[in-house]
Amino acid sequence: MDVKIKVKKYIHDNRNQTVTLLQKLVQERSISGNEAPAQEIVIHHLNHLGLKVDVWDPDIDEMKSSPFFITQRDSFSNSPNVVGVLEGTGKGKSIIINGHIDVVPEGERSQWTSDPYSGEIIDNKMYGRGTTDMKGGNVAALLAIEAIKMSDVQLKGSVIFQSVIEEESGGAGTLAAILRGYDADAVLIPEPTKMKIFPKQQGSMWFRLKVKGRVAHGGTRYEGVSAIEKSIAVIQHILKLESLRNERLLNDPLYKGVPIPIPINIGRIEGGTWPSSVSDLVTLEGRFGVAPDETMENAKEELENWISRLAEQDEWFKDYHVEIEYFGARWVPGSIELDHPFMSTLSNAFMNVFEKDPIIEASPWGTDGGLFTQIKQMPTIVFGPGETKVAHYPDEYIDLDELFRCAEIMAYTILDWCEVNE
Amino acid sequence: MDVKIKVKKYIHDNRNQTVTLLQKLVQERSISGNEAPAQEIVIHHLNHLGLKVDVWDPDIDEMKSSPFFITQRDSFSNSPNVVGVLEGTGKGKSIIINGHIDVVPEGERSQWTSDPYSGEIIDNKMYGRGTTDMKGGNVAALLAIEAIKMSDVQLKGSVIFQSVIEEESGGAGTLAAILRGYDADAVLIPEPTKMKIFPKQQGSMWFRLKVKGRVAHGGTRYEGVSAIEKSIAVIQHILKLESLRNERLLNDPLYKGVPIPIPINIGRIEGGTWPSSVSDLVTLEGRFGVAPDETMENAKEELENWISRLAEQDEWFKDYHVEIEYFGARWVPGSIELDHPFMSTLSNAFMNVFEKDPIIEASPWGTDGGLFTQIKQMPTIVFGPGETKVAHYPDEYIDLDELFRCAEIMAYTILDWCEVNE
Repeated sequence: MDVKIKVKKYIHDNRNQTVTLLQKLVQERSISGNEAPAQEIVIHHLNHLGLKVDVWDPDIDEMKSSPFFITQRDSFSNSPNVVGVLEGTGKGKSIIINGHIDVVPEGERSQWTSDPYSGEIIDNKMYGRGTTDMKGGNVAALLAIEAIKMSDVQLKGSVIFQSVIEEESGGAGTLAAILRGYDADAVLIPEPTKMKIFPKQQGSMWFRLKVKGRVAHGGTRYEGVSAIEKSIAVIQHILKLESLRNERLLNDPLYKGVPIPIPINIGRIEGGTWPSSVSDLVTLEGRFGVAPDETMENAKEELENWISRLAEQDEWFKDYHVEIEYFGARWVPGSIELDHPFMSTLSNAFMNVFEKDPIIEASPWGTDGGLFTQIKQMPTIVFGPGETKVAHYPDEYIDLDELFRCAEIMAYTILDWCEVNE
Repeated sequence: MDVKIKVKKYIHDNRNQTVTLLQKLVQERSISGNEAPAQEIVIHHLNHLGLKVDVWDPDIDEMKSSPFFITQRDSFSNSPNVVGVLEGTGKGKSIIINGHIDVVPEGERSQWTSDPYSGEIIDNKMYGRGTTDMKGGNVAALLAIEAIKMSDVQLKGSVIFQSVIEEESGGAGTLAAILRGYDADAVLIPEPTKMKIFPKQQGSMWFRLKVKGRVAHGGTRYEGVSAIEKSIAVIQHILKLESLRNERLLNDPLYKGVPIPIPINIGRIEGGTWPSSVSDLVTLEGRFGVAPDETMENAKEELENWISRLAEQDEWFKDYHVEIEYFGARWVPGSIELDHPFMSTLSNAFMNVFEKDPIIEASPWGTDGGLFTQIKQMPTIVFGPGETKVAHYPDEYIDLDELFRCAEIMAYTILDWCEVNE
């Protein structure tokens, strides 16, 4: 029997136990710091498949020297990274499939229709935090590897499956895997792209602006300067920068039809202490989208220069500078050449399953992919099942059919890329 | 010896013990809920002067029926009101002198040059929370009454000194005193007007607006609607209402030279939960200035109608109404006719001391005065020593010379208004 038919049949026949595995993973609330129980399930499964398993707690001291290291944590003790290797016989191209095990917190429970950690299935969709982002993608990858392993196929190149921590807070888990020496000829990250192929990934960084005013009693507010009114000017100024930066991507085919390829989102505002006082400080916090072929440094420089130009339109800002700081998470951008062989391997696998061309776009958000390309020049593609729009939101879900089709595509990709040893 | 000369001499000779009394009062941190120790000092002093003293904890249940009642507290137990009466011999006009004993919290201590409750004196200025707002005014009134009492003068009308709680949070203390039956032919409130006479007092109320958006991931922010951007439109709309309302007062001589007689101050803004998400809710909190001859109801109605007109400029607001609520403190406006005899009595006393015309203006902030005029039609004037601009701020202080001159003016006012029984 043709290998691909065998693999396809295996995937079809093993849907139920795959659903059970995903359900078990979703039922573990693997937010940052609480990844161990979910990783235990992954470890158990990898051992069951007979892969070579590597489990370690990333070492903060070791990572600190990397300019790509970012964390809000003091330690990753009891937050293991897990890697399972299906070793090739040699002379083939290797692949890393990288997925994160951490999920963002569920938020306000009242906004969920049911328990965010139930893994409940309705109409062939599994609901729960992490179904789409990205335990579904991880399970699809595991099923692809299992299907190959159980079909008695020997690959020339190795398949390295990575279940990493800390993607949601800037990529310390993937960085640790890279620093541990894991390397491959290509990387696939099954983040929820809704089965679109993302050869370019947007980077992003968080920034904080402090806009100053001068306090006064609200009854004589003309004696003060409202930081709230000044922050309106700052927000409008930033919207102009967003327009300028996005004009440059107008002709990029991967951003065709995307209204704002690299948005600057001001997501939080807070200022003033008392309704009856003129506020003397407003803090704005936002996410700054970084273009796939831009560096973080250039992006920061452009933001800083732009903010300093506020003084040209209002003298106030000359004496009361808007302060900028960067904080929290950060994802470096990444990209692979569109004519790279790994692109055609994946596209062919897609066409095999769907019998149509894949949609190729650039990602609207950052992933760990940028780390692979920027640190080790590993060609990386983001492609996976799941609904981007429900990631991080209540009633997150994944379409199980999509998950199984993705497993098929991943299996074909592995077979073609790593090559079968006849 | 002429009574006025006697009184003036008494005030001059008793500066030191008056300073000590003020210092003791300032050293008690009489924020809302902690007024008792400061009131003890007032009670002791009133007893020492031989006034008829009335001390009671206002009863919340009794006050609840009044439409003017407002509080954030559950009980006023151990937060006494204190009244001391210097009874007249009869047939004269009576006067209430009303001052509040509560102070606003000191805020960030690091912003104070020294201990906010020291009562330290530098260059004839006493520093500390409550010096200006308004323990200085209270002590000036007490000295005026003492000077009359100790000069063996008998008044026809009674002098009712009220040391009330809760002015800073909307006037429950003064309301309790009115409901207890205290009444007079005129009321003087020695709030810090920097010795200007305020026959009209602005009212004010706090309002809260909830501006809605629609959540989305920051990387695809065009899929959402930013409540932060929508709130810019709301703030600008409110600034227009402020202009409209203040145009009406353009020709009021009492607001001559005041850039914005009845400001609408948006003092707080808060919205969004995450830098990478489009915010779906922004809360604005502000203070709405109410004109002296306007009712609170009309002011609210105008605000509500104006906010509803947002939908004319942006369809979004048609489906996502901006919600309005009123909360926290509220001060009703008040005014006295400019030709009321009490106005000329006070103005004459002022000219007696300063040998020049007083400045007559409308207050930029609310006081308890509105309660006296709106509930019992008592003619009320706000006039007192102290720097408006340092009230509620770090390094609050009062000029002691101003305090003594105010005591003199108050004593002459009492003598003329209540009349001396020869």
